[in-house]
Amino acid sequence: MMQSNSETPFVERSDRDDGIAILTMNRPQRRNALSLAMMRALIEAFQEINAAGEVRAVILRGAGPAFCAGHDLSELIGRDVNAYRRIFTTCVELMECIQRIAPPVIAEVAGMATAAGCQLVATCDLAVAASSAHFATPGVKIGLFCSTPMVALTRAIGRKRAMELLLTGEPIDAATAAQWGLINRVVVPERLSEETLALAHRITGASADIVALGKSAFYAQVDLDQPKAYAYAQEVMSLNAFDADAQEGMSAFLAKRKPHWKLTDSSRSASTRYE
Amino acid sequence: MMQSNSETPFVERSDRDDGIAILTMNRPQRRNALSLAMMRALIEAFQEINAAGEVRAVILRGAGPAFCAGHDLSELIGRDVNAYRRIFTTCVELMECIQRIAPPVIAEVAGMATAAGCQLVATCDLAVAASSAHFATPGVKIGLFCSTPMVALTRAIGRKRAMELLLTGEPIDAATAAQWGLINRVVVPERLSEETLALAHRITGASADIVALGKSAFYAQVDLDQPKAYAYAQEVMSLNAFDADAQEGMSAFLAKRKPHWKLTDSSRSASTRYE
Amino acid sequence: MMQSNSETPFVERSDRDDGIAILTMNRPQRRNALSLAMMRALIEAFQEINAAGEVRAVILRGAGPAFCAGHDLSELIGRDVNAYRRIFTTCVELMECIQRIAPPVIAEVAGMATAAGCQLVATCDLAVAASSAHFATPGVKIGLFCSTPMVALTRAIGRKRAMELLLTGEPIDAATAAQWGLINRVVVPERLSEETLALAHRITGASADIVALGKSAFYAQVDLDQPKAYAYAQEVMSLNAFDADAQEGMSAFLAKRKPHWKLTDSSRSASTRYE
Repeated sequence: MMQSNSETPFVERSDRDDGIAILTMNRPQRRNALSLAMMRALIEAFQEINAAGEVRAVILRGAGPAFCAGHDLSELIGRDVNAYRRIFTTCVELMECIQRIAPPVIAEVAGMATAAGCQLVATCDLAVAASSAHFATPGVKIGLFCSTPMVALTRAIGRKRAMELLLTGEPIDAATAAQWGLINRVVVPERLSEETLALAHRITGASADIVALGKSAFYAQVDLDQPKAYAYAQEVMSLNAFDADAQEGMSAFLAKRKPHWKLTDSSRSASTRYE
Repeated sequence: MMQSNSETPFVERSDRDDGIAILTMNRPQRRNALSLAMMRALIEAFQEINAAGEVRAVILRGAGPAFCAGHDLSELIGRDVNAYRRIFTTCVELMECIQRIAPPVIAEVAGMATAAGCQLVATCDLAVAASSAHFATPGVKIGLFCSTPMVALTRAIGRKRAMELLLTGEPIDAATAAQWGLINRVVVPERLSEETLALAHRITGASADIVALGKSAFYAQVDLDQPKAYAYAQEVMSLNAFDADAQEGMSAFLAKRKPHWKLTDSSRSASTRYE
Repeated sequence: MMQSNSETPFVERSDRDDGIAILTMNRPQRRNALSLAMMRALIEAFQEINAAGEVRAVILRGAGPAFCAGHDLSELIGRDVNAYRRIFTTCVELMECIQRIAPPVIAEVAGMATAAGCQLVATCDLAVAASSAHFATPGVKIGLFCSTPMVALTRAIGRKRAMELLLTGEPIDAATAAQWGLINRVVVPERLSEETLALAHRITGASADIVALGKSAFYAQVDLDQPKAYAYAQEVMSLNAFDADAQEGMSAFLAKRKPHWKLTDSSRSASTRYE
């Protein structure tokens, strides 16, 4: 990619000792816009995390005051329709990648999350926002209706509220976003990273295998009608009960001791750049 | 239609200079009950608005203190089942018509919205209510379970709350309706029309073509599972980006000037009657 | 069943004079865990209620401080996968049974409702909880992800909130559960039974036939896409209007008198034990 020659990587990865990887979208001067290069760097980062299998939770944040301002408009002007297809196909690939990788992904939203940036928040497994954050799908105002963000948004906050955001393009604040179920928590800006980490830590104590199984089962069942969802989930549950980590976890619980999961708590603190 | 001989039309249409049409259900003495004639007049009014292509947003309100009290019970007594089929088929046709026409439809709810009247509110793209409004599906109390309103209600407010309204028949107030996502805003009664217009104005500044595209895409994707919804939406988005209004909108945004949409701001203030 | 020899029945049934049956899960020392025997006793109780056709609403509660702590872990350790399949198949059968029987089922939640106990609450048609109750899906902490509870939970409270409960295993209080739509009402503990009965009484005044028709239609349409849901519901509605109870109910309403439903108000106060 051309962009890989730029000085600053699009995505910074920092791995903590506690099994948590932090991915930072790193184009603050562009409000971390989802250019093709940014989307590809994110996909690459998520896929590498997934392949290595050592990370237990991912935190996705933006450098600078904005979380993410959506697509890079400069890539959407004066080109042919296949160029646009490439962009939106990559965008969908990114969203599906976030839900397909094993570790849960938590959006840490300090500032604006608009258009495809709002879609990112709706897509992440969990989301924490600073009280100063806001959320909008303003595409309608510039003639580019937020139709792909709409897919994630409708499924997160329901019809009337999604329609309001999409048709008016007006922002909502973080408290409203929490009330509508778009995000999980609102915190004071000073404590955003700390509270996001605290939420991640509630996950990293569990068996990574079982968390991965559960996350995967979640997205497999969420779109099925109830009888099919149960037909699937009862088999997942039965096989899960047979898993060594379940046997260990239940035995430990009944014996009132701490469980020892299959996977060792490998950790590393390398920093990686995705360009 | 026989009813077209009555003195007062079932639906009054008033077109404003700003691209907003106001449809008023006009049987206040019957609390704007959805008789066959009323439903047909509404369908005709919505279809004519859609065909002419000049209206950018529709506001639907009721004359008098009630918004709409649901079906006209006098049409549901002592007739054969095919007569009932005609009524409920027309009702579904009305609901689908509201979601199929190009301009967004906003319910302006001053008073009671019950049974199929509550379904109307759930069906409109957006809804604003006076704090004095209330909402109920009381059919269960008179032996006629609100099964068609249930379809819209369940999809707007979720299972437990829909079930409560349907099984008990008890009303909720406007604040509760807003909290549950049945409506978008609650305002003091004196400001109902003003605030509904203000919401409509947030839409009418946008390209009417793009709003129509977005509304249509919304209902096309809302019932699909996520992969299919994305497969559809990414193509809508790509074609949208190629649209002249998108190219103009994005260019204007980047140049910090006001966009000029394809459609001229045609307006008219004729008043039409649907009988 | 072996357990049928134990002294205390797993489920106590008490029928009131007003058409309401109260089922009490009766293993307080095991926090009413859903052992195979408990699940089978519940299924048997629900099926018998349904077959007899005299009960108009069911209240499901737990003996002692807990509502239900989920599956019986002692049955999930050291057995083969087919034993686990038997347990989770039975669990799904229980959940489907609750939604398939004619009378509405109201969960009365005094204390903890965790894992499959939380699934029970999400599955019941309605739910009332004491302010002291809490709700959690803590399976992830013991290596057994709550995948079957997930099916009911996702459909009751939406994606982000379901994901939070499932991934963290942390409890929410009753007020949060009400705000999220998992339950219908929160009341002070002293008034829990009274308020649950009051909610049941809002249902038992209606025609039992029509309530049964409505409940059945609810679950038949809830998973369909909107056009199919309407195609189904408009026929249900037309046939409902033709029903004698609808004709009587509408006539009584228009004549401002009390309706007389087809079914007589049979009552009985026998107590039954399910073991």
